[in-house]
Formats: sequence, C-alpha cells, structure tokens
Amino acid sequence: MNKIFLILVLAGVPLSVTGSLLHWPTVMMFGVYCVTIIALAGYMGRATESLAVISGPRIGGLLNATFGNAVELIISIFALKAGLIGVVLASLTGSVLGNLLLVAGLSFFVGGIKFKRQKFNVFDARHNSGLLMFAIIVAFVIPEVFAQEMDEAATMTMSLGVSGILIALYLFALFFKLVTHRGVYQHEEGNGEHAHEEEPEWSKGKALLILAASTAAVAYVSESLVHTFEEVGSTFGWSDLFIGVIIVAIVGNAAEHASAIIMAYKNKMDIAVEIAVGSTLQIAMFVAPVLVFISLFFETSMPLVFTLPELVAMVSAVLVTIIISNDGETNWFEGLTLLAAYFIMGIGFYLL
Amino acid sequence: MNKIFLILVLAGVPLSVTGSLLHWPTVMMFGVYCVTIIALAGYMGRATESLAVISGPRIGGLLNATFGNAVELIISIFALKAGLIGVVLASLTGSVLGNLLLVAGLSFFVGGIKFKRQKFNVFDARHNSGLLMFAIIVAFVIPEVFAQEMDEAATMTMSLGVSGILIALYLFALFFKLVTHRGVYQHEEGNGEHAHEEEPEWSKGKALLILAASTAAVAYVSESLVHTFEEVGSTFGWSDLFIGVIIVAIVGNAAEHASAIIMAYKNKMDIAVEIAVGSTLQIAMFVAPVLVFISLFFETSMPLVFTLPELVAMVSAVLVTIIISNDGETNWFEGLTLLAAYFIMGIGFYLL
Amino acid sequence: MNKIFLILVLAGVPLSVTGSLLHWPTVMMFGVYCVTIIALAGYMGRATESLAVISGPRIGGLLNATFGNAVELIISIFALKAGLIGVVLASLTGSVLGNLLLVAGLSFFVGGIKFKRQKFNVFDARHNSGLLMFAIIVAFVIPEVFAQEMDEAATMTMSLGVSGILIALYLFALFFKLVTHRGVYQHEEGNGEHAHEEEPEWSKGKALLILAASTAAVAYVSESLVHTFEEVGSTFGWSDLFIGVIIVAIVGNAAEHASAIIMAYKNKMDIAVEIAVGSTLQIAMFVAPVLVFISLFFETSMPLVFTLPELVAMVSAVLVTIIISNDGETNWFEGLTLLAAYFIMGIGFYLL
Repeated sequence: MNKIFLILVLAGVPLSVTGSLLHWPTVMMFGVYCVTIIALAGYMGRATESLAVISGPRIGGLLNATFGNAVELIISIFALKAGLIGVVLASLTGSVLGNLLLVAGLSFFVGGIKFKRQKFNVFDARHNSGLLMFAIIVAFVIPEVFAQEMDEAATMTMSLGVSGILIALYLFALFFKLVTHRGVYQHEEGNGEHAHEEEPEWSKGKALLILAASTAAVAYVSESLVHTFEEVGSTFGWSDLFIGVIIVAIVGNAAEHASAIIMAYKNKMDIAVEIAVGSTLQIAMFVAPVLVFISLFFETSMPLVFTLPELVAMVSAVLVTIIISNDGETNWFEGLTLLAAYFIMGIGFYLL
Repeated sequence: MNKIFLILVLAGVPLSVTGSLLHWPTVMMFGVYCVTIIALAGYMGRATESLAVISGPRIGGLLNATFGNAVELIISIFALKAGLIGVVLASLTGSVLGNLLLVAGLSFFVGGIKFKRQKFNVFDARHNSGLLMFAIIVAFVIPEVFAQEMDEAATMTMSLGVSGILIALYLFALFFKLVTHRGVYQHEEGNGEHAHEEEPEWSKGKALLILAASTAAVAYVSESLVHTFEEVGSTFGWSDLFIGVIIVAIVGNAAEHASAIIMAYKNKMDIAVEIAVGSTLQIAMFVAPVLVFISLFFETSMPLVFTLPELVAMVSAVLVTIIISNDGETNWFEGLTLLAAYFIMGIGFYLL
Repeated sequence: MNKIFLILVLAGVPLSVTGSLLHWPTVMMFGVYCVTIIALAGYMGRATESLAVISGPRIGGLLNATFGNAVELIISIFALKAGLIGVVLASLTGSVLGNLLLVAGLSFFVGGIKFKRQKFNVFDARHNSGLLMFAIIVAFVIPEVFAQEMDEAATMTMSLGVSGILIALYLFALFFKLVTHRGVYQHEEGNGEHAHEEEPEWSKGKALLILAASTAAVAYVSESLVHTFEEVGSTFGWSDLFIGVIIVAIVGNAAEHASAIIMAYKNKMDIAVEIAVGSTLQIAMFVAPVLVFISLFFETSMPLVFTLPELVAMVSAVLVTIIISNDGETNWFEGLTLLAAYFIMGIGFYLL
C-alpha cells in the first residue's frame, strides 16, 4: 500500500508539472491531478498521524484540520480575485457537507466494519455540536433570512459584523480548549494514556518535512486542477454548482478523508471526529469569515449569504450529524446514514 | 371490554358489507365503518400482542408496524391509480404526524397516568432519532427546496434517486437491527427477560389466523370508508387536505393506536415506541418511496415533493418527538405535549 | 454595591417622576429611566432571592419569572390598546431572544468565570427543552407557515385555537411540576439540601414588601420609558423593530438579568436556568397567548403571526439553547456562544 502511494507520488507530481506546462488534454490531466492529490494526501495523513502520536489526540486533530484547509483557503483567495463569488460560496458549502457527511460518514462506516461500537469523548462531541449549531444555524441562517429585506450595503455590513463575531468566537474556542479547560473533560476517557504508548512512524522532524513538502505539492496540483474544471464540466455535463459543492470538496478534502479514515480504522475515533467536525468548524468559523474580509481588497466583495439550497443542505447536514454524534458512539449504520444524506444532496446539486 | 369488541366486530362487519351493497346513507355508513375498524383494530392489537410475547419486543414492534401500514399502502395504490397524488401525499403526511404525535402522545399519556416514569431502550431511541432526522429533514426537505428551481423531469429524477436511497437505507437498517447488531444494545435493559415469562393470550397459530382475518376485514372496510370521504367532507365542511392528513391518518392508524396504547398501559414502552416511531419510519422510508416507484406505472407519476405546510408540520413533529423521546423516558406530560402539537396542526389543516 | 443601588433608587425614582411631569429633555430622561430600572431590578433580585431561599429553588424561579414578566404584560396591554401590534410582537420576540441568549448567556459566562463547570438538574433541562420546542417550533412556526395561505379571519381563528392550547398546556406544566411530579426528578441533585442551610437576606414579610414596591416602581418608570422610544429612536437612528426587539427586551428583562446573574455567580444554576428559560416559556406560553385573547377587546386584534426574521431568530435561539443546555452543564464558553448569537441577531435587527 505504502509502496503504491510512493510510486503514485513519484510519477504523479512530475507528470502534473509536465502536463500542465505542455498543455496535455484537459480531461486526462484532470485524472492525473486527482490521483496525485489522493496519493499526496496519503503522505499528509501519515505525517499528521506521526505528529498526532507525538503531540496527543487534540493537537493532532487541529493539525489535520489546519493542513486540510490551508489548501482550500489558498484556492478560494485566487477564486475571489477572479470574482468567482458563487464558486467560493459553493466550495465552502461543499467543504461543510463533505466533512460532516462524507468524511465523518466514511470514517464511521469503515471503522464500524471493523469494530462493533466505537466511542469518542462525549464532551468534545457536545462542545462541537454547540459550535455547529451556532456557526451554521445562527451565523449562516440569520444573514440569509435578514438579507432578503436589506439593500446590498446593509447586507455587506451585516456580513462583516457576523464574520467578526465568528472569528472572535473561533479564537475563544481555541483558548477554551487549549488553555482554560485543557484536560478538564479528559478523565472520562481511557484512550489518552494508551495513545502515548504507540510509536510514531516518522520522527517529528521527518514528519514535519514530509507534511510541508506534500502540502506544497497538493497546493500546486490543486491549483492546476481548478483550471481544468470548466472544460471537464462541459465535457461531463456538470454545472458550476455541482463542481463547486461536490468535486472541489471531495478532492480538496482528500487529505482529511485519508487521515480520518485511517484513524477510524485504528479505532482512534477522537481524532477522526476532530478531523471531520473540527475541519467543518474551521471552514465555517474561520475560513469563510476571513474570506469575507479578504474580499474587501478585491473588486467584488463577498457577502456571507448562501443560496437557499446551499443553506438548507448545510442545516440538514448539521442536524443529522448532531443527532448521530451526540451520544459519543458510532457504528457502521450511522456512517451509512451520513453517506446516504450526502448522496441525496449530491443528486440535488447535480440536477440543479 | 373484550366482549364489547367481539359484538362490535360481529355486528360491524356484516353491517359494513350490507350497507355498502345496499347504498345506505353515506354519513351513517361513515360512522359504522369507523366503529368497525376500531373494533377490528382491537383484535389486531391483541393478536400482534400475542405474537410479540412469543417473538420478543423487537419483532413484535416490526409486526405491528407492518400490519398497520399494509392497509395504508393498499389504499394509497388505489388513490394513485385514480391520479389523486395530493391525497396520497396528504395521507403520508397524516400518517407521519399521526404516528409521531397522536399514537406516541396517547401512549405516553395513558401509560403515564398509570406509571410515574416509564423507560425504554435509549439506544433504540437514538437509533430512531437519527433515522427520523435522515428521512424527514434530509430526504423530504432537500427535494422540496431543490424542486423549486427545477423543471418537472429533473424533479422526478431527483425523487426517484432519493426514493432509491431511502429504500436501500431502510433495508440496511433492518440488516443492522436484526443481524449485525442484534442484541448489542440490549444488556442495559432488564425488561427483556421478564417479557418472556409472560403468557401469550393466543397460541401462535390462532394469533396469526386472527391477525390475517382482521387485517383483511380492516382493508375491506377501509376501502369502503374512503369512498364516503367526499360526501362526508361536503356535509361537515372538511377540506380534502384535512380529510387526508387527519381523518385518513386516525382511522388508518387505528391498529397502531390500539396496540401501542395497550403496550404503554402494560408498561412495555419498548414496543409502544417501536410501533409509533417504527411505523413512522416505515411510512417515510418504505411506503412513500415505494409509492413513488409504483406511480411510474400509472398515468400521473408522483414526485416526492410535499406542500410547504405538510413539510413544516412533519419537520416540527420530528424535532419535538426527538427532543421528548431522546432520553429514553416518558411521563404523562410529555404525552400531552405531543397531543397538543397534534391538535395545533389539526387546527391548521382544518382551516387551510 | 448595595449602597450605590440604594442611592440610585432614592435619586432615580423622584427624578423620574419629576422629569416626566416637567417634560425634561427626552434623551436625558431615557438615561435616567434606564439607570433607575436597573437599580430597582437589583432590589427585585435581592427580594426574590430572599424569597427563593425561604421557599426553595423551584418556587423561587417561578417568582422571578413572574415578577419579571408582569411588567412586560402591562406594557404590552397599553401598546395593544394603542394598536401597536408590530411593537408587541417585536417585544415578545425580544423577550424570548433576550432571556434565552442574553440572560442565560450572561449567567453562564459570569458563573463560568468563577466556576470551571457548573451543573444544573438535567431533568428540568430536558423538560424545558421539550416545552421550548413545542412553544416556538410548533406553536409559533405552524401559524406563521399556514397563515400564508389563509385569509385574515381564518388566521385569527387559528391564532385563538393555538393560544388556547398554549395556555392550557402551560397550566398542565405547572400542575406536572408542582403536583404530580413534584420532587420526582430531585434525588439526583445535592444542591437542594444545602440551599436550605443558607440564611435569607430579608424576612419573608420585608422581602414581599420590597418586591411589591420595587415592582410597582419598575412598572411606573417602564411606562414612562416607553414614551421616550420614538424620540430616542429618531435621535439615534434606531428602527421600531430594533427598539422592540433589543431595547425593550434588555430594559424590560433587567430584573431577570440581575437575579439570574447573581444566582449563577453563587453557583445556583438551577435557579439561574429556571429564571432564563422559565421566563421564556412564560412569555411564549402565557403572556403571548393571553395578549392574543386580550386583543379581542380592542379595535385591532393581534394574530399569533410573527414576521419571518422574528420567527427564524427565535427558532435559531431555541435550537442553540437546547443543544447547549441539554447536558445539564455549563461553562464560560457556552455563555459566550449564546451572547455571540445574541449579538448576531442584534446586528440583523439593527440593520433591518
């Protein structure tokens, strides 16, 4: 398995560079880029796992979420610069749906095939549920509904205010988790101690180096990939919205997919959930509002106002995820339920 | 009590047959049919209860749900054939509302009058909550919202896709409950053992015979009943929507009413909840999507798109039920709350 | 602290009376009224706390809720008489948002700064969650959605029916809490016994006298305050909706603010939550429906139909509160999350 990934990376990265310079056929390059990213994501997964073993489950989860979303932040900034506000909002929606339903769903399903019942810290689950409710059902829904009776200037003012509050609360959440309440909710779980016994695959230095190199390569290939979307879309009959919500999200979150599923398969559900839900929260409470502020420097500024289908899909996804994860326990069927929800939304966005 | 039901059945069934053949006054026959169905439902309740004692609470609950919904499926197929799509969607809505709010509400209330606190398996409650969220808030809401921006063909394609996913997940849910995770969540409850000590009222053979006969009779009388609705509606000033959502649901779910309340009164809340919620899930995840596929064989095909009042009523009902049942405990006031929600929706549909 | 409040009351009440009789500048009087009410609210808080110590946490919470909302009921009746239906509905919305997000948020935050984890009776929390879901997500949402397809007469009939059910269920909830299930869910908490050891600040007679006097004074000053809103609004550029939802709610609920925060700071979270959520329920299930009936005696009758932004804000607030309070535990970050939700809605209503 590891050897295949090594070959794919050693072949995929040079092929991606050569192909994009020599303008090889777009649909073929689309395939090359996707495979390369997935292979690189495998390396990112192994590197972050090594770092997670060294630094404990919570910091490990944060690392995973950060390195998954750095790529998306960079791509979105380029898209904003090009004035593609609809694509940015669609890919933010896709990241939320992809992380909550696809990543968590696959993790629960794959982990549940191996283990009958998997548990994770119920306090973290509830903390995350509260933030998901806040971020999606308050901070995304309120601007949408209120904007219907506002002019553009008021909508943008409201978006900036809501964005500022989202970023502030996200920073307070980190302060809460890492400073004032670090370890307060830990004594209930017994996994923490066992995790330290495990040996990391790579040393801290090597893991950091591989993580940095593969992140850079993923970013490079991802950007090339984005430029193939228009032609691929017209070839396969995919709408912009479908590409933004489904394709960008699946490829852009490949790193989270890989590492979350590996963790679930190793029965480390705390990390798997932290990756899926933590990444969603980072998208909704940090990446999205930061993009609203960054858009002020470009020609077209981006309000925090999604389309109704995007918003309803996110609200449904949050409610289903909360109900399923709120008891701190998962099984294969709960994973399948999340995947089924993802497929239903995928059908909807495909036909829209 | 049992004697009264015996008399009602022995008088009601011949009267129903004679009355419908001789075209007796419709409004009078409406009353005869209703009373007969309720009496027959009492027999179905006792027969399923005997079978439940013999085969354990979970299979018993499934049996109840199945024999309640077979009637509705048959009636709906005839309605589809007649092109009455609105009536079918209304009666599906009514079954969801009736089971979640009226059947569960009456069970909790009647059981709660006798027992101060009634408990049921909290794992089943959470499993059901996840499926309710999925079925109603994802699989019913998404088509509704997305259909607003689609043409008819795309809406029907989406409906078929969503219906396929619903049926598949319903079958996986049975596989999960009866095969891979059978008994996994059982050790927390002590009721299971005591249930087996109890003696069934009838033997397996007699119970099956009575169940089959009374189901057939209920189906026959129900169909006659349906043909009285138009005249009864114009006599009492009831709209089509009110008849579909409220009257069809109450009479069509009389069997579930009877058996769920009997179970609650005997403090077997696992079965009572399984009947109410299990029946809802069967309607939403099996009967409704099967009807979408069956409608393809008729002139007018039925998309899985409810009206906004129907959808909002179902979403509200699901959220209230989940919050009230998620702790695995009930009392009379929780039952009354569900009944109050049902009355509010009844007023709404009556005045619409 | 107590001395400052004494001075503020002894100065504020005469100033309020004199200022309103002599027609002093409105914006200045607005400030005088606000400070006076807050100072009086301090006395109400201390008096109700004394009574709470004497009569136990549950009755104490009820007392708090009642004396906070008596003021609002009186103001709303005068507003209805003047035909200001929009202002009454806005201030009802504001009371729900203010109690759920601002009062509970401040209590959790202030209490959480002092104590790492604060607990309250989880059975009460679930009981309240069920009622919040029922009152807001069934009884307020259904009339709103159904009214879109009804004429005015049917809307008013539906409003009266829903209002009657709300009042009836509210009375049954009191019967449940104080009669049939009094103390049933108490044995899990150890606070009850300790509360009785504490000495009340004032005797029962003195507390009742101060409570009555300060309530009367708050009512008088509040009414004067209301008449300054129009001029203050035009001076500061505040819309009617913003004044109704935000300003009336903050000043009108000052009493709850004061006493809930005092209770949270003393780690009596049962009472703090009872004040915040109990007061919300009393507004939604008693004050609002009573006002619907009272409006029949005036020229313009008030249907129970909120605007879409008001309704969505209340639904969001209920969902966030339920998720955060459902585990019977709070910390400073949960308080901050509720406050952040309140600020987002405040921005929305300000810009509308």
